[in-house]
Parts: sequence; structure tokens; C-alpha cells
Amino acid sequence: MFWSNLTKNITPYESGEQTYDREYIKLNTNENPFPPSEFITNKLKEAVDGSLRLYPDPDSNKLKKVISNYYHVNIDNVFIGNGSDEVLAFSFMAFFKGKKYISFPDITYSFYSVYCDIFEIEFMTFPLNDRFEIKSDNISTDSKGIIFPNPNAPTGIYLEVSIIESILVRFSSIVVIIDEAYIDFGGHSCVSLTEKYSNLLVVQTFSKSRSLAGLRVGFAIGNSNLINALERVKNCFNSYPLDRLASEGAIAAIQDSNYFTYCCNYIIESRDMLADELLLLSFDVLPSKANFLFVSHPVLDAYSLYNSLKENSILVRYFGKPRINNYLRISIGKKEDMITLIKYIESILRKNS
Amino acid sequence: MFWSNLTKNITPYESGEQTYDREYIKLNTNENPFPPSEFITNKLKEAVDGSLRLYPDPDSNKLKKVISNYYHVNIDNVFIGNGSDEVLAFSFMAFFKGKKYISFPDITYSFYSVYCDIFEIEFMTFPLNDRFEIKSDNISTDSKGIIFPNPNAPTGIYLEVSIIESILVRFSSIVVIIDEAYIDFGGHSCVSLTEKYSNLLVVQTFSKSRSLAGLRVGFAIGNSNLINALERVKNCFNSYPLDRLASEGAIAAIQDSNYFTYCCNYIIESRDMLADELLLLSFDVLPSKANFLFVSHPVLDAYSLYNSLKENSILVRYFGKPRINNYLRISIGKKEDMITLIKYIESILRKNS
Repeated sequence: MFWSNLTKNITPYESGEQTYDREYIKLNTNENPFPPSEFITNKLKEAVDGSLRLYPDPDSNKLKKVISNYYHVNIDNVFIGNGSDEVLAFSFMAFFKGKKYISFPDITYSFYSVYCDIFEIEFMTFPLNDRFEIKSDNISTDSKGIIFPNPNAPTGIYLEVSIIESILVRFSSIVVIIDEAYIDFGGHSCVSLTEKYSNLLVVQTFSKSRSLAGLRVGFAIGNSNLINALERVKNCFNSYPLDRLASEGAIAAIQDSNYFTYCCNYIIESRDMLADELLLLSFDVLPSKANFLFVSHPVLDAYSLYNSLKENSILVRYFGKPRINNYLRISIGKKEDMITLIKYIESILRKNS
Repeated sequence: MFWSNLTKNITPYESGEQTYDREYIKLNTNENPFPPSEFITNKLKEAVDGSLRLYPDPDSNKLKKVISNYYHVNIDNVFIGNGSDEVLAFSFMAFFKGKKYISFPDITYSFYSVYCDIFEIEFMTFPLNDRFEIKSDNISTDSKGIIFPNPNAPTGIYLEVSIIESILVRFSSIVVIIDEAYIDFGGHSCVSLTEKYSNLLVVQTFSKSRSLAGLRVGFAIGNSNLINALERVKNCFNSYPLDRLASEGAIAAIQDSNYFTYCCNYIIESRDMLADELLLLSFDVLPSKANFLFVSHPVLDAYSLYNSLKENSILVRYFGKPRINNYLRISIGKKEDMITLIKYIESILRKNS
């Protein structure tokens, strides 16, 4: 009787398993196989001091400045949040609340429908084609807001910036959010389009390419009008979502651009190696520009494979949803872990043959 | 045209000034004058390692365990959030959304009405008496939810636990939230009542008594049914609101109980010393069990005093709202800072006389 109706009716998002029972090769939540660099951890240790007694800057201006310099935008084009999930939550409230309908792909990041749930926003989905590609013609002209990841999740499929630009033109009167959580693994960011298109919001995160999932930092870049809306919503929810250490860690991560480039290139190589090997084993491997592969096998059942991998201390992600219930999402790890994975799958295939 | 109506209609909360132009004696946001202990900062530095590439435990179970041990409750009686403001935001959604009306005092933490604003919850206020005390008879029996801080903010006035218990009995069918941000400075916590009263949620923070405003950690204690509701809402908003370092810092802060006790006792002494001095200078000083005083002077105008203190590098908080527009809220600092403040006020009074 104490719960609000809202609380009763919502269906929470389920994040990938976090396991503590034993050591796994953890390929299920798209974390970076590389730790933050020594430069970053040193900066973090330096930031651990008596100033922690004080509230952080509610606007995270120092981090905003560093991000705005890096992406060649102004400081008032940047919004900072407690992970990109919080940035997305605020975005749904700021732009989509009360609008009918919001559009996203039928197969995409499953948190979008959860945000619609909790903020009571009506949505419709547009179908990906048979190869799980976004076809912009499938987006209803009745949409009052659009959001999708690029590359898409959990498919990894990348949409060319020129096509996104055509969507921005076609839907110039509504907000289009491009969720670029995985953009640094071979795609081109839309950030440069934010200057021209006032309806574009680009959301990014420090959790994947910048090895800081443990610190919870995300950000958005867009026209200052959109950023203002996000600030308004944030300041009705939590004045200080980003703590002092998270801010310093994120600043250091942007500064250490060589390490970032090295890690991203390695992951791209590791991904392409894994894709080649899985193709040799007859997997259907969707073309990925993310730090994961989305794969299916003509003989091996995805859920069985997920379970037997888990028994053998390799965690991947299985979704069990329509259209993708025979696919697995495999985060890209170190090459040695990819080889362990391949060898194990080969052994299963040998047993099955 | 891109903003949701919600975004247009909300009035964000305004937190106390954060100033970066010069050094202030900062007595405006109720931060602790003591830094986190060396034990805490050492633990934090140790936690800065390669594991930051991984997501934190979404449930912060390690911190929950430490808090549940400390407060003698079960782990499923504890909810953790990104500062108590986030915990409060989730609470409004989990318990108050859609209920008519929610009640809180006419003079209280001004974020409550902001939460009502953004989550579209209707509220009514009950008046504090002439001495700014909560009189439980003033709470409407039509209330569908009640929240107030104990001690209240910005008055600092403490309500006896026995009176809170009578409210819990009288309003047994609705959720009563006691916001104990300032409870460690001389009040008695209601946490022990949570076992008996399934409608009670107690919210606390690491930002004041535990010197960690810079880390953003808050928590709630209550019946597991209430905690479940908070978890549901949280998992529709952000799976991982608490980062790895914040969690480790909070754990260390609970563990270092001697330092905590020392700091709280010092602040209580410093507060009582300041109160005595201000009374000698003819101030009206509300009896405070918080780490701040709420004061008014029969001759000195509060806003003018706020401004002249600021010019002299002493920051206090002025609200300028009905009933309290001639009061200042002064956070309790080190004794030497209190003496500086008193000397400065004395000098103003001399000039005025």
C-alpha cells in the first residue's frame, strides 16, 4: 500500500550480471579490457585530499571545459552526468516527457523503453531490417522524438553520419538523440553536426573507450538550448551528481589521448581478429564498429552456448528477446582472452560434430 | 520548441554558492570543517586501481553491509544513492508520485517542493509555530505522505523521537520520511523505529557529519518493502549511481568511528560557543541540533549582513523567503573561524551604534 502506482507498474532495467563467486573472463558488459592508465590513476590519487569534505562544483565546469576543448565546442554545449544512463534519463524528461510518440529501433538499448516506462512517455519502435540495420525510411513521420545508439546496441552496427544528417534534416522540428556509447571503436562521431543542427543531442560515456566504468561519468553535447533543458532537469533532481574524484578521473582520461588511442586501436584489432575466427567457425557475425560482437551460430543454440561458456568461466550476454534470441553479445577483451574463447567454442563444436 | 512542457514549467533548486574567485571562510553549505581522516583518504587511494575499468556493484552491497552492521538492521533494509538528494528524488517517485497531497513544513529543505514540481506531485505545507517548531497537530489528516528533516532545515530545530513515533502511529497507512541529514550533531536517530514502523523511511548522508560532501553518498533505512520500491525506481533510472571510489570512501568513513565522534563533538562545542556569543550580541538564535545556526538580529538586517560578510570573505546563507527573510543560516566551522566571524559582527555592531 505504500508504493506509488508508478512503482508498481514499472519494469526495471536489468544490467549484465556482476559476478563475485569466482574469476571470469568477463565479456558481458562491454567494459574495456585495459585499466585506466597510470597517468589517470596518479591524477586520481592526487585528488584524494581534504577537499573531499566540500561539495563538488555542481556544474562540473572544469570537466566541461576539457570536454569542450577536446570536441571543439563551447562550454555551454556540454552537459555532464553520473554515467550516460543518467544523462539519458534526464534527456527523456527534458525533451520527450509528454510527447507522443517517441521512436527508437525495435532492437536497441533496452533502457530506452524503461525510461519511457518510468517517465510515462509513449513510444513506438521502428523495425531494423533483416540484417539488423537502421533504415531511416522506417522511422514514422509522426515521431515527436527519436533516439538510437550509433553503433546500435546490441548489434554493433554503425550508421553513416550522412544518413544521420538526413534524419536530422527530415526531422528538424524534433529532438534526435544519438547515443554514442560505442563510437570510439571505429565510427565517426556526430558531434560536429551539433553546431549546424539545433535538434541534435549526442550522448557519450567514459565507461567504454575510456576505461572508467567504475567512475560513472557520461556527457552530452548539443546546442546550448538543449543543454539548458538538461541543466534545468538535473537541478530539479540532484545538484551534484558528479563527485570530485569522478570529475578528476574523467579530465585525466581526456588528457591522456595517446593511451586512449592505443586502447581503442587494440580493441578494434582484437574485435576484427575474433570476427574472422568466428566466421571461420560458421558464425553469423554482424559487422561491428563497437567493442562487442553480436553473433549467432547455425547449429549451436545461443542460450546453451551462453550457459556452457559461463560454466567454463567465460561470461557473455544473452538477451532472449524476439528476433535476437539466438544471438550472443560478446564484449571484446584482450587477444589472449579472445583466443581462449575461440578455443573453447572449437572444442564444443568438435564434441557436437 | 524542443523542451518538454515539464522542462518549461519547473523551477530548479538553487544550491548554496560555490565560489572560486578567492578564499572564503565557507559557512554556507553546511560542509564539515574537518577533512576526511587519513584512514579514509588512504583507503580511497588504495581503491584507485585497474578495477576502475569495471562497473561498480549496481547494488553497492559491500557498503550496504557496513551500514546495516553499524545501524543494526538487515542489509535489505538499506538503500544507497548518489547523495541523499538522489535518495530523496527516488523516494518521491517511489512513494509520493500520484498521491494527493504530500505534506511538509512551510519552512523546510526547499528541494522538497522542487521534487514535487518535477515529478508532478501535489503537496500542501503545514505551518511551523512562531518559534519555528514542528507541531504534529498541524499536519493534515488528509496527508498521503509526509516528509521533514530532523533536525529541520534551515532552522536546526530538533523534534523528539517520541513525537515522531506518535506521528508514525497516527499516520500508519502512509509513508513518513525523516530526512536525518543533520542528525549526528546532537539528535537521536529514528533508525531504531524502522523495525517497528513499516511506514518509516529514514534518509541520511555522508556529506555532513562524515566529511564526504565531495563523494556524493546518501542512504535510506526502512522496511524491506520500502527499500524494494526504491530499488525498483533506481533500476529504472540508473543501474550504477554509486561509483567504486565513493563506495570505498563511505565504507572507510563508517569504519573510522573515533574520528567521526571527535568531529561531531567538536562541531557541537563550536556551535554552542557561537550560539552563546551571538546571544551576547542580541541575536535571536534558534536552538540548533544541526551543524548550523539560524539567526536573526533586531537591528542588523540579515541581507545586508550577508552581503557585508561576503565582502569580507565570509560566506553564509541567506534565503530571502517569507517568514525567514531576516534570518541567516551559518554553518558551523572551526572555532577560529567562528571567532573571526564574531569579531567581524562585533565590529559592524560598533560601527552601527
